[in-house]
Amino acid sequence: MKKIAVLPGDGIGPEIVAEAVKVLNALDLPLQLDWADVGGKAYETSGHPLPPATLKLAQEADAVLFGAVGDWKYDKLERSLRPEQAILGLRKALGLFANFRPAICYEQLTHASSLKPELVAGLDILLIRELTGDIYFGQPRGRRTAVDGHFPGAEEAFDTMRYSRPEIERIAHVAFQAAQKRNKRLTSVEKANVLETSQFWKDIVIEVHAQYPDVELDHMYVDNAAMQLVKAPKKFDVVVTGNMFGDILSDEAAMLTGSIGMLPSASLDANNKGLYEPSHGSAPDIAGKGIANPLATILSAAMMLKFSLNQPEAAARIEAAVESVLAQGLRTADIWSDGTTKVSTREMGDAVVKAI
Amino acid sequence: MKKIAVLPGDGIGPEIVAEAVKVLNALDLPLQLDWADVGGKAYETSGHPLPPATLKLAQEADAVLFGAVGDWKYDKLERSLRPEQAILGLRKALGLFANFRPAICYEQLTHASSLKPELVAGLDILLIRELTGDIYFGQPRGRRTAVDGHFPGAEEAFDTMRYSRPEIERIAHVAFQAAQKRNKRLTSVEKANVLETSQFWKDIVIEVHAQYPDVELDHMYVDNAAMQLVKAPKKFDVVVTGNMFGDILSDEAAMLTGSIGMLPSASLDANNKGLYEPSHGSAPDIAGKGIANPLATILSAAMMLKFSLNQPEAAARIEAAVESVLAQGLRTADIWSDGTTKVSTREMGDAVVKAI
Ligand SMILES: CC(C)[C@H](C(=O)O)[C@@H](O)C(=O)O
Ligand SMILES: CC(C)[C@H](C(=O)O)[C@@H](O)C(=O)O
Repeated sequence: MKKIAVLPGDGIGPEIVAEAVKVLNALDLPLQLDWADVGGKAYETSGHPLPPATLKLAQEADAVLFGAVGDWKYDKLERSLRPEQAILGLRKALGLFANFRPAICYEQLTHASSLKPELVAGLDILLIRELTGDIYFGQPRGRRTAVDGHFPGAEEAFDTMRYSRPEIERIAHVAFQAAQKRNKRLTSVEKANVLETSQFWKDIVIEVHAQYPDVELDHMYVDNAAMQLVKAPKKFDVVVTGNMFGDILSDEAAMLTGSIGMLPSASLDANNKGLYEPSHGSAPDIAGKGIANPLATILSAAMMLKFSLNQPEAAARIEAAVESVLAQGLRTADIWSDGTTKVSTREMGDAVVKAI
Repeated sequence: MKKIAVLPGDGIGPEIVAEAVKVLNALDLPLQLDWADVGGKAYETSGHPLPPATLKLAQEADAVLFGAVGDWKYDKLERSLRPEQAILGLRKALGLFANFRPAICYEQLTHASSLKPELVAGLDILLIRELTGDIYFGQPRGRRTAVDGHFPGAEEAFDTMRYSRPEIERIAHVAFQAAQKRNKRLTSVEKANVLETSQFWKDIVIEVHAQYPDVELDHMYVDNAAMQLVKAPKKFDVVVTGNMFGDILSDEAAMLTGSIGMLPSASLDANNKGLYEPSHGSAPDIAGKGIANPLATILSAAMMLKFSLNQPEAAARIEAAVESVLAQGLRTADIWSDGTTKVSTREMGDAVVKAI
């Protein structure tokens, strides 16, 4: 019996997670699901976005199925109490250093992209983002009086970007191994022409490459990567980058597909325990309306079965079922177009269950 | 008599700057042009990418016309000697804190964009990037042994992101004033949900906003901005952001237009002295072939006349001449399409001169 911590969170989180749970249940696997509040919801029920009980449940589980957190109504809380702290706290506490963000353009949804169809048809990029280091967590950080710089004596704020050798080595290994399972091309993205941390990153990626001679490695500055993603996204296979650049580029890549409502993600620790969540956010503007697309969450559950629960066949069944509902022409509002059938969140989940 | 330091640099720099100089000469203005080497070229002639004589010339000039720097052949030099250090050094030494990066989609070039024409037709964004602060210049930085973090005792590299109150205030004023001259909408981009520096940035932008009640201000996280630029770029008017995020987003925005060979840029100090350069790079792969697009550099010269030399009519004449050569169907290879006339770098420059 494998244990799954189910954390629906805020906004559309509860609706989309409910559909993913329905799909998991339909597979009849030996899974024990336990629920807990997280994000704004948890703040309201227990005063903190990541209460100890929620963290404990996540720590004891074999995998975490996560919805989304955040709502404008929490914007005025001090930062340590805001919903996003829950996801940052979980990443750190569970050591989820490897974030897999596929950017896939489904054949039937090519038209939904902002890009010309020929540029995105068949797009299949895997962006791997380091998730527990970099300027996200680097100490020291804060406010102080500047002692040097352009305006000594002025009030200033600061953060520290930092990466250690083992942090870079482990994400590099993950990325090279992922590339080996795909088209054997890896692009490491940094800003080595400006940043010490980036030059160190690049040096170590080159060192680790020696163990993966079958993978073709190239290096790209982050500004150029942001351009090449727009210009010719299909030139990429696997991309590996740090936490901050990965935040930006993974969202850019996801939006290129035009159907971010379809994109799952996985955040793994060193032992393939993971947190699985859709790539999109909590979308408070459409919460409770029953129109959100549950497929990214359903596909996240498939990633969970594959990466953390050693159930690749069950994962494949979910993926095939999703392909099948798309082929049937079923679409939630975000991916709907003329000639297809608009369905609700629940109808989409039911259709996937039926297709299984 | 105004003094202009002309720094052609590497790659296609000399070719495109030559055309801009031809255009300036055709205007018959009281300008004194003085040339100097910069970047890899300067490293070869005098051992440093920004030799003292070049810096002095730039410091004593009223404006700097800059081509581009960089070539793969310098990749193996230690960082302090690489061509990019010239541009970083000039920004810092001249106090060029305000970088103006327009992303404009010319009507005749809409087809060149990766995006669907309806998403970019008429696009006109002004991205304002802070250029002398942030993690680009923040001390301390370097390599050391980690004393805390995930792997105490390990080798690590680090950089410091920092912004002081006066640095943020002055770029905010520049941005609000630019917005007042346009559609009075300003988007401030940061990552205040994660970074102390970003929260400080946001707080101060809100404070400065009190002095510009006619400008509508909104705030966007950098990951969301990277997405919205792809999804609906025309929703932006003026964007203001820090040095690092501005590096990424300005290149993304430029590439969206599909014609980065058309986009000028200006980097200004507190007294409107500025450095003017095309948004594209040195393109060593096509250097010396006479096929580079000189229009971004020619339009940079127009920005120079407007911002630093108080010659708005002369600037307008250049801009009109560029519109006219496009209307004549003249295109360099980068923007050429069926039914238009392919011309060389020099032919394009000559056509602009003739149109003046
Ligand atoms: C909510 C936020 C802290 C988070 C991040 O920046 O990592 C989000 O943007 C993401 O990418 O998962
Ligand atoms: C060459 C490099 C240092 C520079 C930067 O990062 O600022 C360039 O990318 C730019 O945007 O002008």
